[in-house]
Amino acid sequence: MNVVKSKSDARIPVAVLGATGSVGQRFVQLLAGHPWFRLAEVVASDRSVGRPYFQAAEWRLSASMPQDAAELAVKDYDAALESPVVFSALPGEIAGAIEQRMAREGRALFSNTSTHRMAPDVPLLIPEVNPEHAAALDVQRQIRDWSGFIVTNPNCSAIHLVLALKPLHDAFGIDALAVTTMQAVSGAGYPGVPSLDMIDNVVPFINTEEEKMTEETKKLLGGFDGAFQPACLTMSAHCNRVPVRDGHTECVSIRFASSATPHDAARVMAEFRAKPQELDLPSAPKHPVIVRTEPNRPQPNLDRDAERGMATTVGRVRECALLGTKFVLLGHNTIRGAAGASILNAELFKVEGLLPI
Amino acid sequence: MNVVKSKSDARIPVAVLGATGSVGQRFVQLLAGHPWFRLAEVVASDRSVGRPYFQAAEWRLSASMPQDAAELAVKDYDAALESPVVFSALPGEIAGAIEQRMAREGRALFSNTSTHRMAPDVPLLIPEVNPEHAAALDVQRQIRDWSGFIVTNPNCSAIHLVLALKPLHDAFGIDALAVTTMQAVSGAGYPGVPSLDMIDNVVPFINTEEEKMTEETKKLLGGFDGAFQPACLTMSAHCNRVPVRDGHTECVSIRFASSATPHDAARVMAEFRAKPQELDLPSAPKHPVIVRTEPNRPQPNLDRDAERGMATTVGRVRECALLGTKFVLLGHNTIRGAAGASILNAELFKVEGLLPI
Amino acid sequence: MNVVKSKSDARIPVAVLGATGSVGQRFVQLLAGHPWFRLAEVVASDRSVGRPYFQAAEWRLSASMPQDAAELAVKDYDAALESPVVFSALPGEIAGAIEQRMAREGRALFSNTSTHRMAPDVPLLIPEVNPEHAAALDVQRQIRDWSGFIVTNPNCSAIHLVLALKPLHDAFGIDALAVTTMQAVSGAGYPGVPSLDMIDNVVPFINTEEEKMTEETKKLLGGFDGAFQPACLTMSAHCNRVPVRDGHTECVSIRFASSATPHDAARVMAEFRAKPQELDLPSAPKHPVIVRTEPNRPQPNLDRDAERGMATTVGRVRECALLGTKFVLLGHNTIRGAAGASILNAELFKVEGLLPI
Amino acid sequence: MNVVKSKSDARIPVAVLGATGSVGQRFVQLLAGHPWFRLAEVVASDRSVGRPYFQAAEWRLSASMPQDAAELAVKDYDAALESPVVFSALPGEIAGAIEQRMAREGRALFSNTSTHRMAPDVPLLIPEVNPEHAAALDVQRQIRDWSGFIVTNPNCSAIHLVLALKPLHDAFGIDALAVTTMQAVSGAGYPGVPSLDMIDNVVPFINTEEEKMTEETKKLLGGFDGAFQPACLTMSAHCNRVPVRDGHTECVSIRFASSATPHDAARVMAEFRAKPQELDLPSAPKHPVIVRTEPNRPQPNLDRDAERGMATTVGRVRECALLGTKFVLLGHNTIRGAAGASILNAELFKVEGLLPI
Repeated sequence: MNVVKSKSDARIPVAVLGATGSVGQRFVQLLAGHPWFRLAEVVASDRSVGRPYFQAAEWRLSASMPQDAAELAVKDYDAALESPVVFSALPGEIAGAIEQRMAREGRALFSNTSTHRMAPDVPLLIPEVNPEHAAALDVQRQIRDWSGFIVTNPNCSAIHLVLALKPLHDAFGIDALAVTTMQAVSGAGYPGVPSLDMIDNVVPFINTEEEKMTEETKKLLGGFDGAFQPACLTMSAHCNRVPVRDGHTECVSIRFASSATPHDAARVMAEFRAKPQELDLPSAPKHPVIVRTEPNRPQPNLDRDAERGMATTVGRVRECALLGTKFVLLGHNTIRGAAGASILNAELFKVEGLLPI
Repeated sequence: MNVVKSKSDARIPVAVLGATGSVGQRFVQLLAGHPWFRLAEVVASDRSVGRPYFQAAEWRLSASMPQDAAELAVKDYDAALESPVVFSALPGEIAGAIEQRMAREGRALFSNTSTHRMAPDVPLLIPEVNPEHAAALDVQRQIRDWSGFIVTNPNCSAIHLVLALKPLHDAFGIDALAVTTMQAVSGAGYPGVPSLDMIDNVVPFINTEEEKMTEETKKLLGGFDGAFQPACLTMSAHCNRVPVRDGHTECVSIRFASSATPHDAARVMAEFRAKPQELDLPSAPKHPVIVRTEPNRPQPNLDRDAERGMATTVGRVRECALLGTKFVLLGHNTIRGAAGASILNAELFKVEGLLPI
Repeated sequence: MNVVKSKSDARIPVAVLGATGSVGQRFVQLLAGHPWFRLAEVVASDRSVGRPYFQAAEWRLSASMPQDAAELAVKDYDAALESPVVFSALPGEIAGAIEQRMAREGRALFSNTSTHRMAPDVPLLIPEVNPEHAAALDVQRQIRDWSGFIVTNPNCSAIHLVLALKPLHDAFGIDALAVTTMQAVSGAGYPGVPSLDMIDNVVPFINTEEEKMTEETKKLLGGFDGAFQPACLTMSAHCNRVPVRDGHTECVSIRFASSATPHDAARVMAEFRAKPQELDLPSAPKHPVIVRTEPNRPQPNLDRDAERGMATTVGRVRECALLGTKFVLLGHNTIRGAAGASILNAELFKVEGLLPI
Repeated sequence: MNVVKSKSDARIPVAVLGATGSVGQRFVQLLAGHPWFRLAEVVASDRSVGRPYFQAAEWRLSASMPQDAAELAVKDYDAALESPVVFSALPGEIAGAIEQRMAREGRALFSNTSTHRMAPDVPLLIPEVNPEHAAALDVQRQIRDWSGFIVTNPNCSAIHLVLALKPLHDAFGIDALAVTTMQAVSGAGYPGVPSLDMIDNVVPFINTEEEKMTEETKKLLGGFDGAFQPACLTMSAHCNRVPVRDGHTECVSIRFASSATPHDAARVMAEFRAKPQELDLPSAPKHPVIVRTEPNRPQPNLDRDAERGMATTVGRVRECALLGTKFVLLGHNTIRGAAGASILNAELFKVEGLLPI
């Protein structure tokens, strides 16, 4: 692959697939001014192709569109890309073939799409949680005969849950957990959820979400020994859509394998630090899990932007008569829950010398 | 006590305490045109006294204020009432003394307030669930030396939960349950929850709600053998406030003592009928529990008014990996969850000859 | 045309075109139990055809689907209909040809769609406002050579405005008016407005709405003398979408031709009665315009259901420093603003002997 | 007055009165890291006194509480303050005496409260609009015999209107205008508007808001020649509360004295620059008025944070059949509409050497 670098800019050129959609816009926003990556290419569906990004994308984030992105001409999915690193915010229906082609062409493909998440040779990665799963790329290369690779990040409700669970699982072992989510509408993209379903209403159902949360949580907390070994825990999820723009709230009850008080649980979550913090990755939150002690936190409006949307906020850690420990957690679903997660994965790969450049 | 009856109206005169508040207004609305009870007196705090109800109450229900109620002059809490039957929507801070005085004066006091719900000699009653708890009034009379009595109805989130649990408990025995609520703002009265807490937000905390739900559920499903015997079950609740006007949604997971499939559970809930249905009480729903099969129901906007707000709607009955069975339920929190519950209790007492008239 | 009547039911069979959509569902709801019309046929697009209505329509009204409608098999747009009276809730893109065919086949077609509203031979009718415009059907028959006809009802924001303006225009003459609307999302149908555009937001634009409001208002308040003579008044509209389910709110400032105080204006609106009230049509409100005196009314949640959604509620009638008189009005946009308006037109035609039966 | 300066910090110490309320919190947030002012004192009502600010204030802004403010001990209204510059976010009921005492003590008091806004010797100031009104302080000192002074900033809906009107008034002269507002709930403080009034609702009334908007607009656009000369224009306002957290939207129609096309109007607004831009004041927006050309802007969620909440965004500039020109404007009501406006006034005074230090 022939990588063209800007003379005056030593940063790695990156492309965003599905750049005009909701998550695509977040990628564009979060990549603006990134110290290591330069947004070089925006890729979207036919009707946008050739137009400058500011015309093609109906920008719907409250922060303004980054100046550099505005003038990029939108490329189509078949275009030959210059970027060795590619972020995917593609719709699930079309992601499979396009993402695989990118990997075949030798690119590092970081995908937010669910298509490849549960594949037996694709890492589903959270740098704080299971960086060692990157080893699965050896298997991937062997099986697929790709010079590049595909790495995925989790579903927007799974990632925040697992960030809170990881230090608990390491310290006490998680036997069983029950989670009920109250998820924001931005998780469904745009146009997404009709306003007639959300004004003065709750929808107690999100298609395949409960299944995704459960299987992804087990993969993320599990091991890799040549194959993924899902964590042995019993999990049940209720997923709901509520009239909130951004920020998924989750009520969690847990049974630990070893004894732990709510105070112990709060402590290990608050003290949790991992690889991204040690490596001081540009998008890493200083505290991956923030534990609040007020009786009525976390709340979407007050806590979703904590650590620039990259942290999970936990509150109300207390006894659960049924499972032992319960709490509430909240995280930004399109930053740490989507685009930010993908970018953090790429940052980890950069530091570890795994990018194809 | 000297009961004055309207010449032309054989219905029993009733009073509503706290008649200008949110729940008070629901009492007034639901009593309009009631076949057995005639709203004779509206009682409220000092600043309303003497004014006609339509001036004293800032009416906030979408249906118009009933004509008969509009002209009633508001009485104060110390006024000598004519009504032998009294409904209480008093704030908890002042309910204790006033409600007890009513009972001492020989009145039947049906209270929606939490003050006396857990008292060892006060029935906490749902006619479909534990009508036999009325026997506790013998104890109450003995201890308190009242000629009247106090009967209470449950908290707005407990009552809908217990309506769904009752047929399950009878059929399969409930060992343990986890419930997460998404509660409407009308449950907090008016002015209640500030809009800054509810627009684009969720508040994962309602003061003392989790405790009330749990202890009331156990009392309601328990027995009475001279003393209340709370049901032996393990229960854990997460209570949340969401931007919905009316209708509490609850995600429930249950472990049964004996084996039961989700299909069995759905069936016994759908077939549930009890005393109010047999007696055809005026406010009784034909189906106390409605079981829907669509994947995305119940929803507050579509289901809260089922059976004129007196039923609980259940949906998504399915397997729970953790406890065996899970589902979503929804009910109107100020009709069956408050004023309607109290009126149904009074209807039961009327039919059973327990009213002091 | 061959009209088949049910033996046991002397009511006129009617069909609803576009029966599965938002306005179509309102037609179905409002026709349930109608004293003169019997819902005989529900007509919708291909993918619904042949299925029973309860399966084809994803019902989204809080009241339950009427029993009689539930079992009707959905017909396609090409089916030969039995009903001599047809209500149209068709999408604008396809309404033209289908509605014209209905009229050609000899049916009375009452349309809520905008397609024919401004045609020079089609009455745009509000029974309280311009029943004499029905005379345009003579022109229509002559020009089009139809045995049936098309009658339309106004846009959802125009109709409530004109109901309030009519008595004022008759009494004082309206020279000029400014109106700013805050419109509910149900006006855009389903899925309609995305929730990301409505949670914590206002959209100050509704495509072609300002133009429709203005031209329809002039046609409605104008005369017919063989041709429509639009009213001579200057009008300016700002149209906005706000996070409300049902009920359009409109802030109106008016300059009258003759002098009138706000008190005069309030009086003539409150006293307004017209043909539907004289004829006591089944869907007619007793008071087409309700004038409230509270400082903070009308409000969508409290006033949209006044007179079963068929009235316009006016409040805050006061002096306007710029134009003389100003007030706020509110009305239900899918009842009087759509399906209810069409049905009231049909009721008028029935009484006047203008239906083809 | 004895001003104590921090050794290591040459910035001017400032105090915020009413620091724990909604607007008070905005002051605290906006003063964090200010280049010229150092938040030295937070002053609030009795029940907060003596506690550190982070305990006394229930912080409700999505950004975290500034570290420096968190540890400040809350002072009471009678405390002797060290700060020569004081910002007031006091409730109207108590503002009068306290603000006057501050001025008497020699302090520069910049008030967001309405109490003194219309006083004949108090400048109501927007640096871009009427900086020359500062001359009224000579009158104020003379009449009141104060060594300090009171300067006020406008109501949250008036300020954004006037920012858009100013360049138009200068260029074409404004004869008459009609405005309808859709105002955010944060304008009412906390707890403020009950959620039962805002979920699925609009309230078409804000107490005294229409009067304030009108009289303040005339004072702001008028002259000062020893006395304030209100601008000669006819104005009518409809004020509404809508379910939006932050950001007031206003629909404006204008009649100019001289002829101007909508294109002319858009141009002069877009080109508007004034003293704060020339002086490059720290809080000044680069563009006080941003003119957008998309058909559906401005929107609260997308535009309220433009220029860090200090700009007014205008859109849909077009012909008005009634008054000639109309458009929509939007601005952040607690930043440029309150705390930010006050701080910008203080910055202007600093540069002009008018502060008592």
